Amino acid sequence: MKEYCVAVTGALGAVGQEMLSILESRQFPIKKLKLLDIAENVGKTVKFCGKEVSVELSEPNAFKEVDIALFAVSDNVSKKLAPEAVKNGAIVIDNSSTWRMDPEVPLVVPEVNPEVLRQHKGIIANPNCSTIIAMVPLKPLHEFAGLKRIIASTYQAVSGAGIAGIGELKDQSRNVLDNKPIAPKVFAHQIAFNLIPHIDYFEENAYTHEEMKMFREGRKILGLPELMVNCTCARVPVVRSHSESITIETERPITPDQAREVLNKAPGLKVVDRPENNEYPMPVDTANQDLIFVGRIREDISSTGNGLTFWCCGDQVRKGAALNAVQIAETIIKMELI
Amino acid sequence: MKEYCVAVTGALGAVGQEMLSILESRQFPIKKLKLLDIAENVGKTVKFCGKEVSVELSEPNAFKEVDIALFAVSDNVSKKLAPEAVKNGAIVIDNSSTWRMDPEVPLVVPEVNPEVLRQHKGIIANPNCSTIIAMVPLKPLHEFAGLKRIIASTYQAVSGAGIAGIGELKDQSRNVLDNKPIAPKVFAHQIAFNLIPHIDYFEENAYTHEEMKMFREGRKILGLPELMVNCTCARVPVVRSHSESITIETERPITPDQAREVLNKAPGLKVVDRPENNEYPMPVDTANQDLIFVGRIREDISSTGNGLTFWCCGDQVRKGAALNAVQIAETIIKMELI
Repeated sequence: MKEYCVAVTGALGAVGQEMLSILESRQFPIKKLKLLDIAENVGKTVKFCGKEVSVELSEPNAFKEVDIALFAVSDNVSKKLAPEAVKNGAIVIDNSSTWRMDPEVPLVVPEVNPEVLRQHKGIIANPNCSTIIAMVPLKPLHEFAGLKRIIASTYQAVSGAGIAGIGELKDQSRNVLDNKPIAPKVFAHQIAFNLIPHIDYFEENAYTHEEMKMFREGRKILGLPELMVNCTCARVPVVRSHSESITIETERPITPDQAREVLNKAPGLKVVDRPENNEYPMPVDTANQDLIFVGRIREDISSTGNGLTFWCCGDQVRKGAALNAVQIAETIIKMELI
Repeated sequence: MKEYCVAVTGALGAVGQEMLSILESRQFPIKKLKLLDIAENVGKTVKFCGKEVSVELSEPNAFKEVDIALFAVSDNVSKKLAPEAVKNGAIVIDNSSTWRMDPEVPLVVPEVNPEVLRQHKGIIANPNCSTIIAMVPLKPLHEFAGLKRIIASTYQAVSGAGIAGIGELKDQSRNVLDNKPIAPKVFAHQIAFNLIPHIDYFEENAYTHEEMKMFREGRKILGLPELMVNCTCARVPVVRSHSESITIETERPITPDQAREVLNKAPGLKVVDRPENNEYPMPVDTANQDLIFVGRIREDISSTGNGLTFWCCGDQVRKGAALNAVQIAETIIKMELI
């Protein structure tokens, strides 16, 4: 089997660390691994497959021998560095939001739209985390019944804001329990024992940028430029795994039983829907694993057309970011696009 | 001003305690206060307006001199005891779900449908907490634009499950932070740093009873027997105040500006909707106060008709239960129905 020189850029962040763990556990065919990060992290070492690997500076020349570069960096860094990495011969799989809506850049969830990878010109974008988690169940439902409209409310874990987000939730929780003062830094407000209906910046239409990602990226990934999408995103005091309450309207009827059958057969999903046994998707059960759990599947009793309602959860650091990026890399190899 | 003999039944529970605090702070015209509870609590004392009041046994004869009885007891207890209290001359304002859908019993949110109090026959039902919180903003929006459909996802605090629910969240949170084992008792699963998309029992249509309360009670309170309602209820690790993400479809157009104007003028509401200053409703800001906060008001961009989306929060122990019950009592007095 052919092996590749793989770079992880932003190797010491939450998503970068998860990418390394996934590359290792999935035995990704790596000839050489390069860990790239900002100047202050250069020289630090990370264990990978039993060997210590030193962090190098993330700069254009670092990509000269790289085949596949997994980017887990900010929008600004990606904007400058991704084209340089491509010039130096790497295929960039980028987790930031910089390239996602670029018509030249494929935006890919491997279970949903792998075929668009054929059009890649060096940069491939990894979608927004809550969008990925919604797309995996929505694709098979769309194939069965034709998706017309999505109304989603999210319950997003703090790890969406990186390692610092997790620390803030834990520290604040302890302080609140001990009646000590708290001082929010990562989030705009207290997150412990609270909710914040605000993720990313507000756009002119009063939706947040995060909410509009579900709208714009959802349309692009599903190839449905007319799809109607309404999303409300809230940060919740959960460490890991995003949850979503989703109601859809479809062209053709779909019963809950048909939906369960379709979802059971689709890739990347696990149907957890036995309410009589108190079994439904929950964040604690979906953390640190690869599948999107779907449950609470039922008819939308408010619909005058064809409506379905469900609840899904997925580990947004894994499937919502690091795993999806590695799966894109695996798909590129499998489709012989490298 | 006329004064009344008031009983609080279930006086030592979370809602009962809140009722006492609200009666005191609102200077309810009380001639005599009776605290009623189960046998094991008889003889305990509670401070009210500076005086210690002893708890008496909650049984039919206890209501003989009572004018207004606020019930904060279980469905089963209410089913037996409320008719006995009425026989003994009391008007019962009941917080359980037993009487809510009885066509003979008014189901009342004083800001929304006080007029139905005129039909009372002794028992008046206090609606479900998340339903009350939705009704307060939905009523003025309905009056302006005509409500056709509601799609709601709730984020419900643990205090909806009483004092034991709060204790379980706090104890579990500390144990999770300290890597100690946890053993759920009040909730079906871990609630600390987790979400549970399951409140009350599952009905045959796969909705929970809590979700169907929004459907059934919403229709009854708004006097709209055809209203289409889809609700998903989730328990979140928040101590106090329920939040709701609500999308509505209306007969006539309503812009976000019109909605803000209408909501600003309506009773029981505070519009908190300045995203540019990171101001929107949050549970920590709405706990221990009386108003429902509404914000994130925006056009439903997925609607082909007239659609609006918003986010609201309210203290479900106060407005969602105890305050609403006391307000019903105040309204009965004001309307001279006692």
